[in-house]
Amino acid sequence: MQEAFKLALLGEGLTSPNPSVGAVIVKNGGIIGKGYHKKAGAPHAEIEAIEDAKRHGYSVSGSTLYVTLEPCTCWGKTPPCSLRIIEEKISRVVAGSPDPNPKNKPRAMEIFRAQGIDFSWEILPEAIFLNRGFYHWIVTGTPWVIGKMAMAIDGSFSAGIGDEKWISGLPARTVAHKLRMVSDGILIGAQTARHDNPLLTIRHVDKKYKVQPWRAIVSLSGSLPKELFLFTDSFKERTLLFVRVPLEMVLEELGSRTVATLLVEGGKTIFQAFLSKGLMHEVAFFLSPLIIGKAHHTEWSNSMIASKALSSPIPLINPSWEDLKGDIYCHGLLLKGAQFLEEIRNQAINPANV
Amino acid sequence: MQEAFKLALLGEGLTSPNPSVGAVIVKNGGIIGKGYHKKAGAPHAEIEAIEDAKRHGYSVSGSTLYVTLEPCTCWGKTPPCSLRIIEEKISRVVAGSPDPNPKNKPRAMEIFRAQGIDFSWEILPEAIFLNRGFYHWIVTGTPWVIGKMAMAIDGSFSAGIGDEKWISGLPARTVAHKLRMVSDGILIGAQTARHDNPLLTIRHVDKKYKVQPWRAIVSLSGSLPKELFLFTDSFKERTLLFVRVPLEMVLEELGSRTVATLLVEGGKTIFQAFLSKGLMHEVAFFLSPLIIGKAHHTEWSNSMIASKALSSPIPLINPSWEDLKGDIYCHGLLLKGAQFLEEIRNQAINPANV
Repeated sequence: MQEAFKLALLGEGLTSPNPSVGAVIVKNGGIIGKGYHKKAGAPHAEIEAIEDAKRHGYSVSGSTLYVTLEPCTCWGKTPPCSLRIIEEKISRVVAGSPDPNPKNKPRAMEIFRAQGIDFSWEILPEAIFLNRGFYHWIVTGTPWVIGKMAMAIDGSFSAGIGDEKWISGLPARTVAHKLRMVSDGILIGAQTARHDNPLLTIRHVDKKYKVQPWRAIVSLSGSLPKELFLFTDSFKERTLLFVRVPLEMVLEELGSRTVATLLVEGGKTIFQAFLSKGLMHEVAFFLSPLIIGKAHHTEWSNSMIASKALSSPIPLINPSWEDLKGDIYCHGLLLKGAQFLEEIRNQAINPANV
Repeated sequence: MQEAFKLALLGEGLTSPNPSVGAVIVKNGGIIGKGYHKKAGAPHAEIEAIEDAKRHGYSVSGSTLYVTLEPCTCWGKTPPCSLRIIEEKISRVVAGSPDPNPKNKPRAMEIFRAQGIDFSWEILPEAIFLNRGFYHWIVTGTPWVIGKMAMAIDGSFSAGIGDEKWISGLPARTVAHKLRMVSDGILIGAQTARHDNPLLTIRHVDKKYKVQPWRAIVSLSGSLPKELFLFTDSFKERTLLFVRVPLEMVLEELGSRTVATLLVEGGKTIFQAFLSKGLMHEVAFFLSPLIIGKAHHTEWSNSMIASKALSSPIPLINPSWEDLKGDIYCHGLLLKGAQFLEEIRNQAINPANV
């Protein structure tokens, strides 16, 4: 299953709104086939693994399939994997995470058991985490929201906190662009757009096959300089301007455009608005070893997006710290995100939900 | 020399305003004596090492002395070590850092060379750093200033940022109290005193022999509740209240009370006032994985201590990050501190200064 997960990671950021999935086929104690889902519309991991085995002259009849996500049972752009698995007489299937796609009725677990195929779970929390965007989008229709903040060690901001002014080192920029790489949309406030004129493109990481994420600007006035890169560069048709639209509706609209993972990149007011409305699932902070001394405050008064003070501190769940050679990276889930992933996990463990 | 430095560390925080010094005596390839300076007034490390060797039946004649600080040449509470070294016919002396105490005229280097004793430097930057308080106090008469800040990961503060409200875990509290352990004075603003009613005592670390640091409060009004712990506890005679005194004069006054290392513990306004006046040498930040969302601002308008905005970001020099099991600790020097330590180092390397 760990081998299958390594394969799944090869599709990270490239399969949306589909999940990233890896599969290996084992027979007589050895791996005879490997595959992963390369992009939406391409064959699923199970099919890739079966074809891989055949290409090498193996019969998959009587084999065990390890797959990081429960096989699909519905007809989409491709035929259901569960059907192929039955046809190929694979005798055992082990899945690393559930697939709550409502189109999968009945689910693979039920179909396989009815067909006498041994089906079991070997839940990989990292596989669930890898596909958090897919899960949230398929269940709710709206994206999983990651908030990103970059600041000085004393908590201060520069005039703008957008693109990469405060992320000094290349290791930190690389991690920041990796966040964009796994996102289908990047959202900023109009203030950040005006101050920083950011590109919101993906750099510093291998972006082969990656589609440019949607670039969303939320604004009160709608009055933004027409010469901003977001309106003029080669990706200008991937820019959306939301004027006086409540954040909940922004998320609905982005979801309808298959944005499964949304990266909120600032400013602070936007970040806090998502936070205080309970619309954020995960946070990523970049801290530079600098002292600014005076925080820059852009106070917005609009009731749609203005932040209210948080009544109590919000703890990060499973916080991790990473030293990025000068800057530090702090990552964690918020309660809402952790609870959602727990529910997904329970869809496998609790038979009542399956 | 590394062995001598380990011994010097045993006196850390206990010898002020004297330096922490370790010494080992080597003869025929083996260590025959060890010693360190235990507290002000007690024998110096060199004497401890000589006595240790004799206690074990060794003659130190013809031996090599490794000592982390250049031996003294003046009469203080104890006779000059250089005299004893000559009397004992030690033939070689290696020093890890210079002693710029103006009373040491001529310095050991000159005296030893005149006496035919082989003297050389083996500079240990960590030994200079260990005694940064001593160095600053002996050269300028004022303390080396360490600024400490505790905050949430998003840069927010609680109503008060004093004692340990925002340092959640024991590992972080232990590091914070270690900072107090190496300090001779702790300074806070009146706001922090009122909000937090802190003790400013040393806890969570072994404090044997440690004298309670002076506790300094800087205030505009001087009106503080008489029932504060700082005015009523068993260390109340170690509390100093400075009303409308410029920070430069506060440092002079603390220096005259042999405060060699001063820890500035907040609040933010006080921290920034030291910073903007260029009176801080070193910073220590504690970050908790929490989001508060709204920063608490106590804006002071007094010209003596009010902070002015910093014209440009201040980089931390040699920043280090440490994961304290949940909280993170960021430590670094400010330019003024780094330059001062470089000057001290040059007092050994540059013969013109010796």
